Amino acid sequence: MRVPVNNYNPDFNITRASHAVWSVKDLDASEAFYTQVLGFVVTAREADTLYLRGLEETCHHSLALVKRDGAPTCDRIGLRVYTEDDLDKARAYFLKAGLPNAFVEVPHQGRTLQASDPLGTALEFCATMPAVERKLTQFHTYLGGCAQRFDHYQVLLPDLEAAGEFYTDIGFRLSEYMVDATEKLMALFVQRKGNPHDIAIMYGRGPRIHHVAYTTVDVHTLIRACDVAGSLGYGRSVERGPQRHGPGHALFVYFRDPDGHRVELFNTHYLTLDIENAPARWDPSNIHRNLPWGLPAQRSWYEEATAFTGVDLRDTPVKPNPMTLERYLFERS
Amino acid sequence: MRVPVNNYNPDFNITRASHAVWSVKDLDASEAFYTQVLGFVVTAREADTLYLRGLEETCHHSLALVKRDGAPTCDRIGLRVYTEDDLDKARAYFLKAGLPNAFVEVPHQGRTLQASDPLGTALEFCATMPAVERKLTQFHTYLGGCAQRFDHYQVLLPDLEAAGEFYTDIGFRLSEYMVDATEKLMALFVQRKGNPHDIAIMYGRGPRIHHVAYTTVDVHTLIRACDVAGSLGYGRSVERGPQRHGPGHALFVYFRDPDGHRVELFNTHYLTLDIENAPARWDPSNIHRNLPWGLPAQRSWYEEATAFTGVDLRDTPVKPNPMTLERYLFERS
Amino acid sequence: MRVPVNNYNPDFNITRASHAVWSVKDLDASEAFYTQVLGFVVTAREADTLYLRGLEETCHHSLALVKRDGAPTCDRIGLRVYTEDDLDKARAYFLKAGLPNAFVEVPHQGRTLQASDPLGTALEFCATMPAVERKLTQFHTYLGGCAQRFDHYQVLLPDLEAAGEFYTDIGFRLSEYMVDATEKLMALFVQRKGNPHDIAIMYGRGPRIHHVAYTTVDVHTLIRACDVAGSLGYGRSVERGPQRHGPGHALFVYFRDPDGHRVELFNTHYLTLDIENAPARWDPSNIHRNLPWGLPAQRSWYEEATAFTGVDLRDTPVKPNPMTLERYLFERS
Amino acid sequence: MRVPVNNYNPDFNITRASHAVWSVKDLDASEAFYTQVLGFVVTAREADTLYLRGLEETCHHSLALVKRDGAPTCDRIGLRVYTEDDLDKARAYFLKAGLPNAFVEVPHQGRTLQASDPLGTALEFCATMPAVERKLTQFHTYLGGCAQRFDHYQVLLPDLEAAGEFYTDIGFRLSEYMVDATEKLMALFVQRKGNPHDIAIMYGRGPRIHHVAYTTVDVHTLIRACDVAGSLGYGRSVERGPQRHGPGHALFVYFRDPDGHRVELFNTHYLTLDIENAPARWDPSNIHRNLPWGLPAQRSWYEEATAFTGVDLRDTPVKPNPMTLERYLFERS
Repeated sequence: MRVPVNNYNPDFNITRASHAVWSVKDLDASEAFYTQVLGFVVTAREADTLYLRGLEETCHHSLALVKRDGAPTCDRIGLRVYTEDDLDKARAYFLKAGLPNAFVEVPHQGRTLQASDPLGTALEFCATMPAVERKLTQFHTYLGGCAQRFDHYQVLLPDLEAAGEFYTDIGFRLSEYMVDATEKLMALFVQRKGNPHDIAIMYGRGPRIHHVAYTTVDVHTLIRACDVAGSLGYGRSVERGPQRHGPGHALFVYFRDPDGHRVELFNTHYLTLDIENAPARWDPSNIHRNLPWGLPAQRSWYEEATAFTGVDLRDTPVKPNPMTLERYLFERS
Repeated sequence: MRVPVNNYNPDFNITRASHAVWSVKDLDASEAFYTQVLGFVVTAREADTLYLRGLEETCHHSLALVKRDGAPTCDRIGLRVYTEDDLDKARAYFLKAGLPNAFVEVPHQGRTLQASDPLGTALEFCATMPAVERKLTQFHTYLGGCAQRFDHYQVLLPDLEAAGEFYTDIGFRLSEYMVDATEKLMALFVQRKGNPHDIAIMYGRGPRIHHVAYTTVDVHTLIRACDVAGSLGYGRSVERGPQRHGPGHALFVYFRDPDGHRVELFNTHYLTLDIENAPARWDPSNIHRNLPWGLPAQRSWYEEATAFTGVDLRDTPVKPNPMTLERYLFERS
Repeated sequence: MRVPVNNYNPDFNITRASHAVWSVKDLDASEAFYTQVLGFVVTAREADTLYLRGLEETCHHSLALVKRDGAPTCDRIGLRVYTEDDLDKARAYFLKAGLPNAFVEVPHQGRTLQASDPLGTALEFCATMPAVERKLTQFHTYLGGCAQRFDHYQVLLPDLEAAGEFYTDIGFRLSEYMVDATEKLMALFVQRKGNPHDIAIMYGRGPRIHHVAYTTVDVHTLIRACDVAGSLGYGRSVERGPQRHGPGHALFVYFRDPDGHRVELFNTHYLTLDIENAPARWDPSNIHRNLPWGLPAQRSWYEEATAFTGVDLRDTPVKPNPMTLERYLFERS
Repeated sequence: MRVPVNNYNPDFNITRASHAVWSVKDLDASEAFYTQVLGFVVTAREADTLYLRGLEETCHHSLALVKRDGAPTCDRIGLRVYTEDDLDKARAYFLKAGLPNAFVEVPHQGRTLQASDPLGTALEFCATMPAVERKLTQFHTYLGGCAQRFDHYQVLLPDLEAAGEFYTDIGFRLSEYMVDATEKLMALFVQRKGNPHDIAIMYGRGPRIHHVAYTTVDVHTLIRACDVAGSLGYGRSVERGPQRHGPGHALFVYFRDPDGHRVELFNTHYLTLDIENAPARWDPSNIHRNLPWGLPAQRSWYEEATAFTGVDLRDTPVKPNPMTLERYLFERS
C-alpha cells in the first residue's frame, strides 16, 4: 500500500468538483423527481437536455440530464479550475501525462477541456459558466430536499494506488482514507475546496460513478426530502439513511432517481484548510467507527453504480466483501 | 372481524397511559443509557429501583427500573385515572367483570389498583403521584434524546377482538386500526388523551410489551439521540429508524436498552378530540402506505418483546407474516 | 385577588378552543398571506367567506375570514363541546346564568350555540363540523409556516376575577397565572385539552382578541414562516419573535395579517392532565422569568388587538404598564 | 467611491480568518459562558489565558482569552497563511508597504508575524498551530450553542476605500458590499476560504472589532444557545436575533460575553469560489432587503465594539446614521 502524498504545488488550480452529465430515459419523470423530491432548480430545458442547479448555485448547471435510451450512463463528471489560464495548464499537464484530452465546445459552459484519468474516468474541466440567479433567499420556492449545491461525487475505481497518485498529483489533498486488514487501500477522500471531499474514491469495479452529493439546509430538509418522496410515491427511492457517516461525519440520505442514478443529500461537514490537518485513517472492518449507529447499507448501495458512457469496466483484482445489510443480518441470525 | 365500537360513557375516567415498571440486570448500566442516550431525568435511585421521568413530567416517575436477575420482564404498565373516585369506580368495574384486581401500596404513587385485562396484561391504575419539578425549561440539562414524556405503549396480544372489546369498554377510543386481506384485525390504536394513541395493540404472541414511547422535542433531538448513542458506544442499540410511521404519522427511532427493552422516541402526532373524527383503517400489506419511505424493520422488531412478570404467553392462532426487512430483501433479490 | 378555583364537574363538556371568525378587507390578499406565509389549507372559498384549516385538521374550518369593509373585527371565537347533548346542557347553563345565548344556523358547522361570557366576549359552541381530509401526510403541500392546528386564543379582558370565575365554572382548568406586585391578577391560562391553554386571558381594555395560535412542526418551520414572509415581501408582518415564552414555555413568532389580526405560530408545549398538576404562578415584573432571553415585545404587541363585532369596549380600572420594548430601551439608556 | 478590485495573484496565500485574542476580567466567568452557553471546547487553561476552540476545530485555539483588568480590549485578530513560505512573503509585503510588522513568539502557535493594516488593526499571521482532537463526533459533549469553528470577524474602520485597497491587495476577494445613497462605501465583505466572508468591514469609528462569528450546526442549536443562555441566567446576553441577514443570508444570533465582547453564532452560508461570481451590491437604506424580517438591531449593536489594545481610535468623517431599533420605533410611532 502507498498512501498518496499531497502535492502542494500542482501544475494547475482546480477549485472544486462542480457538475455531472447523466443520461435519462424520460425528461419529464426526471424533472418531476429532481425538482419536487430533491428540490433542484431548473435553469433550462432544451431539446434533449435538462439543466439543473441547486438553490444556492449561480452556475448555469451542476447536473445536466440528457435524454437517451438504453442503459443509463454518465457522460462526464465536471471540475472547475480557477482561471482560463489554469485550463491551458491543465491541457499541458494531460498532454505531458499522455492521457486523453481535448478542448471541446459544451453549451452553457466556458471553454471546456475533456480528459480522462488513468483509470478511464471521463472528466471535464472549465473555468466558467454563465452566471444565473442565486435562489438562496427565495425561500418560498424551496421544495422537498432543498438541494443547495453540488459538493462532491464518489467514483468506484479498481486501482486506488494509481488513482491516489493521479489525483494528488493534480493537487487534490487527502483528507481521509481507508485501509483494510491486509493493508490494502479501500477508499480515498480527496479535496480542493477545504471540506472533507470533492471526490470520494472507493475500491471497486470501475470506473463507475456511485453518486453525486448535494448539500441540504439541515436535518429537517433531509427528512423533508424523504417525507415528500413518500407522499409523492417515491418512497422506495430512499435507498439508505437518514444515517451518519463515519468518514466525513455527514448526516445523509441516498436516493435513486427514476433511472437508478444515485444522489446523496447531506449536511454538516468540517473545514480542512490548515497545513497541519493530517489525513484521517479508517479501518473499514470496524462497523462501530464506520457506521456510528443503525444498520449497514443494503447490497445495492455497494454494488450498483453508473458506468461512464462508452468506457470499459475493469474488475478489481480482489473482490471487496463489504459489511452489507444482508450479510449483517445473516451473520447475526 | 369486529371493529371495536367506542363507548363514550365509560364507568370510570382514564386520562392517559402513564408509566411502566421493568426489570434490569444492572442499574448503573441502565442509568447511563437512559440518562445520557435518551435524556431521562433521575427522580430517585433507591435500593433496587431507579425512578426515571421525562423532561416535562411532574409525576414522580414514568419508568421504574427494578434490579432483578433472570430474563428481563415487565412488572406492570400504568394508567392514570382522573380522581380517587375514578379509582373506586375502576375497582367496581373489574370486580363486576370478574377480572383480577387489588388495591396495593406502591412507593411514590397514590392509591394504586392493580388489575389484568382479559389477555393477562398486568395493568395498574392510580390517580396521583407526588409532584416533582418540571425540567422543561432547564435547557442546560437536556441530554441526548431529550425524552420529554411518556406518551404511549405498545403491547402484543393474541386476540384483538377481545382486546378491542375490553379497551373500548373502559373508555378508550379507536383512532386507527389495521385489517389484513383476510379481514383479520392486526392492530388497534386506542387513546384517551386526544392524540392517536395511549395504547397500540398489535396482533401477536402475548401478552408482551413491545415498547414504551416517549415524545422528543423535534427531529434534531431524535437524531441527537442516535448520534450520542453512536459516540458513547451504543450505536447498535438503534434498532429501527429514523423513519416515518404510516399509522400515526410520527417520525420515530426505536432503541433497545441494555436489557433489550425497547423504547421509542418520536415527535409529531395529531390531535383527535372531535366526535366526528372517524378511526382510520389501514391495510398492513400496503408497504407504500404503512412505510412511507425507506426499508421495513428487521425481524427482531417484529418478534422480540418483553414478557410480563409471571404471566404465561399465548400464541396467536395464525402466525403473523409481517413484511420484515429480511423478507423484503429476500423477495426482491 | 381571587385565584380561580377549578370546577372538576362542570355542567357540560368543552373539549377545546376550535375556531375564530374574522373580517378582512380583501379575500385575495388574505388567502395569499394565510396559505403561502403561514401554510394554511383552503377548505372552501365562497361568496364572501374564506374557510381555512391547519394541515392536521379534519374539521371544515378553524379560521373563517369574512369579507367586510370598515375596521377589522372578530365576529366569534369558537369552542367545541363533546356531544350534541353537551350543547343542550350548555344552553341550559347560559340560560340559568342569565347570559346572552341562542341557537343559530352557521354554514359548515353542526348545531351552533352562540353566547357571551360576562365580559361580552362573543363565543360560539358546536359539537361537530363536516370532516375533511387530514393533510398531515401530504408533505409536498406543506408551505411556509406549516400551520398545523388551532391550539388556543388570547383575549384581553378588563376584569380577570370575573373572567376566572366564569371560565373555571364552565370547566376550564387553570394551568398558569400572573399576579403583579399589588396582588392583582394580570393573566390566566386556562385549558380543557390537556396542554397549558385553550384560552389565555390577559388583563386589558376589552373584550378584544389578541391572537389565535396555531401549532407548527418545529423550530425549522417557525423560521421558515419568517423567511418566506421575508422573501414574499411580508417581512414587517413578523411582529415579535422568534422567542421563548416564560409562561407556557413555547417557542413562538407573532405575525400580523394584512388586516392587522394577529396569529401566533408556536411549537413545544407540555401535557397537563394529572390532578396533582398545580397552577404555576408568575410575577409579570420579573423579566428574567417571563422573557427568558432577548428583548421585550414592542408596544403594538401589548396595545393592539381586534375588537369583537358590535361589542363595546371597557377600560381597565388601572392601566397596565407592561415592560414594552420602548420602555426597556428607554430605561436602559 | 471606489469599489475594491480583486487581486487574483497576491504576494502570499492567506487561507482564512482564524483566531482572536481578547482580554477578560474573570477567566472563570468567561469559561462558564463560553463553554456552557456557546458550546466552546477548552483546549487549555494556563496562568492567565484560556484557550478555546470550536467543536470541529483541530487548531489549538481560535479564541484566546487573557485575564487583564481595565477596559476589555482585543490584542490581535489572527489569519492563517498556507505555508511557512507564505509567512516570509507576507513579511516582505509588509516591509515593502511600510506597515508595522514583526516576527514574534506566541505560545501554541507556529512562527507568527504580527502586523497592522493601514487603519491600525492589529493582525497576526501564522501557518500552523499544534493539532488537537477534532471533537465533531463526540456528540455527547455538545453543549449549548455548539460553536463549531471560527468563520469570520467584523471590524469597524473609518476609511473603507483604504481598507478595501489593502485587503484586496493581499488577496481577499470581494463578495458583497454596501453603498449608501451618497455613493459612500458602508460595508465590505471579503473572503479567502470560499464562503461570503472571512472579514466583514463596516464603516465606523475604529479600528474596533465588532464581533467574531462561529458556525453552529443548525437553527436548533442556535435556539438552544438562546434557551441555555436563558436557563443559566444569561438571557440578556442575547443582544440580537434569531434573525436572518440580508447580506450573506445567514441565520444568526449575537451574544455579548461577560465582558461585552460580541460573538455571533450563525449557520447557512453559500459557496463563492467560481471566477464569475460577481460581488453583490446592497443598499443599506433598504430595510426590506437588509433585514428580510423582524426589527432592526438596537443601538448598542451598531455603536458598541471592542477597541484594539493600545490602538488609537479615529472617528469617521461623517457619522453613520443606521436604522436602529430605537430610531425605527420612534419614526414609526
